[in-house]
Amino acid sequence: MTVLTTALAVNGDRLNQHIDQLAELGRLPHGGIRRLAFSPEDCQARQRVRQWMEQAGMKVRVDAAGNMIGRYAGQQTKLSAIATGSHIDTVPAGGRYDGVLGVLAGIEAVQSLHEQGLRLDHPLEVIVFSDEESSMIGSRAIAGAVKGEAIYHPEQGTSIQACLDAVGGDWSRILSARRSREDMAAFVELHVEQGSVLDSKGYEIGVVDGVVGMNRYAITITGVPNHAGTTPMDMRHDALVAAAQVTLAVQAIALEQPSRPVATVGSLNVSPNAANIVPGRVELTVDMRDLSQDCLDDMTYQLSRHLQAIAAKTRTDIDMTPILKVKPSPAATSIKSVIREVCQDLGFSAHALPSRAGHDAMEMGHITDMGMIFVPSHAGISHSDQEYTSPEQCTQGATVLLHTLVRLDQVYS
Amino acid sequence: MTVLTTALAVNGDRLNQHIDQLAELGRLPHGGIRRLAFSPEDCQARQRVRQWMEQAGMKVRVDAAGNMIGRYAGQQTKLSAIATGSHIDTVPAGGRYDGVLGVLAGIEAVQSLHEQGLRLDHPLEVIVFSDEESSMIGSRAIAGAVKGEAIYHPEQGTSIQACLDAVGGDWSRILSARRSREDMAAFVELHVEQGSVLDSKGYEIGVVDGVVGMNRYAITITGVPNHAGTTPMDMRHDALVAAAQVTLAVQAIALEQPSRPVATVGSLNVSPNAANIVPGRVELTVDMRDLSQDCLDDMTYQLSRHLQAIAAKTRTDIDMTPILKVKPSPAATSIKSVIREVCQDLGFSAHALPSRAGHDAMEMGHITDMGMIFVPSHAGISHSDQEYTSPEQCTQGATVLLHTLVRLDQVYS
Repeated sequence: MTVLTTALAVNGDRLNQHIDQLAELGRLPHGGIRRLAFSPEDCQARQRVRQWMEQAGMKVRVDAAGNMIGRYAGQQTKLSAIATGSHIDTVPAGGRYDGVLGVLAGIEAVQSLHEQGLRLDHPLEVIVFSDEESSMIGSRAIAGAVKGEAIYHPEQGTSIQACLDAVGGDWSRILSARRSREDMAAFVELHVEQGSVLDSKGYEIGVVDGVVGMNRYAITITGVPNHAGTTPMDMRHDALVAAAQVTLAVQAIALEQPSRPVATVGSLNVSPNAANIVPGRVELTVDMRDLSQDCLDDMTYQLSRHLQAIAAKTRTDIDMTPILKVKPSPAATSIKSVIREVCQDLGFSAHALPSRAGHDAMEMGHITDMGMIFVPSHAGISHSDQEYTSPEQCTQGATVLLHTLVRLDQVYS
Repeated sequence: MTVLTTALAVNGDRLNQHIDQLAELGRLPHGGIRRLAFSPEDCQARQRVRQWMEQAGMKVRVDAAGNMIGRYAGQQTKLSAIATGSHIDTVPAGGRYDGVLGVLAGIEAVQSLHEQGLRLDHPLEVIVFSDEESSMIGSRAIAGAVKGEAIYHPEQGTSIQACLDAVGGDWSRILSARRSREDMAAFVELHVEQGSVLDSKGYEIGVVDGVVGMNRYAITITGVPNHAGTTPMDMRHDALVAAAQVTLAVQAIALEQPSRPVATVGSLNVSPNAANIVPGRVELTVDMRDLSQDCLDDMTYQLSRHLQAIAAKTRTDIDMTPILKVKPSPAATSIKSVIREVCQDLGFSAHALPSRAGHDAMEMGHITDMGMIFVPSHAGISHSDQEYTSPEQCTQGATVLLHTLVRLDQVYS
């Protein structure tokens, strides 16, 4: 069917009430929300979200990876789903919008259609992904990236297998959670930016170019610990001097790339770490992110060249071990175009930008057409009780999501 | 009287046996010696050393600062003492030569004279200074640098006042420990180098030019912690990038000075210290040492200029707080000349060098003529059970000390 999209609207008051209600579950006494995946608070929140899904006319199921999937039937029984969603788990002291907005706006979009007696050609799905903030097991299982290996879940102090039971998942059938383009034609996620680009530039909507890939390395520098008084400068093997050069090289490597990637030395530990001892050993991490795999590869090459030169110059040994590799996940051109058109039609200012934080959409991008809609985060603050997106901005995001879903129904017909 | 110095010799076997015996007190099961000042092991060692002093014909007293002072009477009753000595306390897992050699070689020198029925014009003193490895309260009290302020002794977990009781000191009379040139004409300390200059260059004896002064600063860099993915490079206030620049500036400042000082960032702590967060705060220490106060002053000035420039460039706040200032303590020309002459007469190769580690002699240099004799440390290793100076080298050091004391008796007549 064809829907007169200009007449469609979400109920912004209801959406923001739902956000407020979910923020009560896991609220910490001194601010922030602690709703760790698989915790009692997470289970309580899932129960609430299930009720809202059902009120919006969806059938709800939980897959083997614990993903809760609400499905609003389409008019054409043979079409694969158009999906949206995000997560409702938080970091140990998180904010109220990260993840939650995407889930509740998806439900609100379906409820709007439902209340107006509208049904798309495609089935619509709203997915609550399991454990986005730690293992990402939910979206990874759907994308086929979980192979049955043991996963330890540090916050819960137990295996992910045991965790899944708590939310109705089933580790023994984890491979059954896998999906493909055959049953998911497209996936769109609405999320707060968690950065300051939209907020500082005054844009209402971000059209995400894709989720950046990430190369993370553990670097160990071994020098010789020695007396800071009696060891002449030219007889030192100072691991911290080497680490300082590495830190500045990492910054320079990012600044040299035309695509404006980011690269960070975030963690650095010195040993023995005493004022009167020349440092003998430093362990540090390098985190590099960009939308282009070529850029990531080149930065890694540059880093290894720098490390070799620094080791020689400082007479230290430097070891570089990969600890995390995530491939970039570009957004589908078709979905980006639809989001841009929607913004234009609705009169929202839109800005194209990459997502430099990881999202469930990243995994969906590996199996089907993916897109993301960002709304501004005040001052870019995230993973904090200071995280803020105004009710109006939340409503704008949900409105763009609703119209995007409706147009994708036509694009993928 | 005039002594025929060429006939004088120490008993090297006895000296090295004493070193071995003292190394048993506080020996750790897996190597190293733990004989913290004021501990039961320290008290036991003091008792042993007191016996050796008495066997060498000395009268022993303990002053208010817990310094144990053996005195071998001179022929002239009115002359002030010529003194030597060092310490017998260790770091938590130290070696067997640091401090001990100077004390036991001093006793051996006196015993040699005593056994040959010789007595100098001046009284000879061998001083075991209290707590060289931590508060240096013993030598500082003698130099008048302890004013009665409360001192906390971290290893013992109690106040220095309580510690002093254990070794026969008396905090209430601490000012009485003070001495001057009037009753100490000269002080010479024999010590292992704790550096690798003599060992690597193959010299037998080091003639110390003085003990370097030290300026130590705590530097706090305050930036803004932020998401390592979503914060563009040009919007960061990265405290670790600033700290890296500080670390390299500290190295450059030392290398630019003609007197070859040392400067070290030995301790550095990052916060929040996570791979995915741009560092918001770094605390680090800067330790700078040189024999010239002018050089120390200039390095401090250069450091503060660098910090200002780095803060502006990295958009961070940088605070610099002095935490330790020790004035350089140059050796007396007269004593350096005597040590050099003795080496020449005895056929030992000698090399002039500064002491870049602190010593009790540093404090003595503030009240009287001071000199130091170094013997090589194998590979410069110190504060470790790997510390090593051969028995022959220990005997050579004691021999030079004995002859130096005898000649100083004439020089200061």
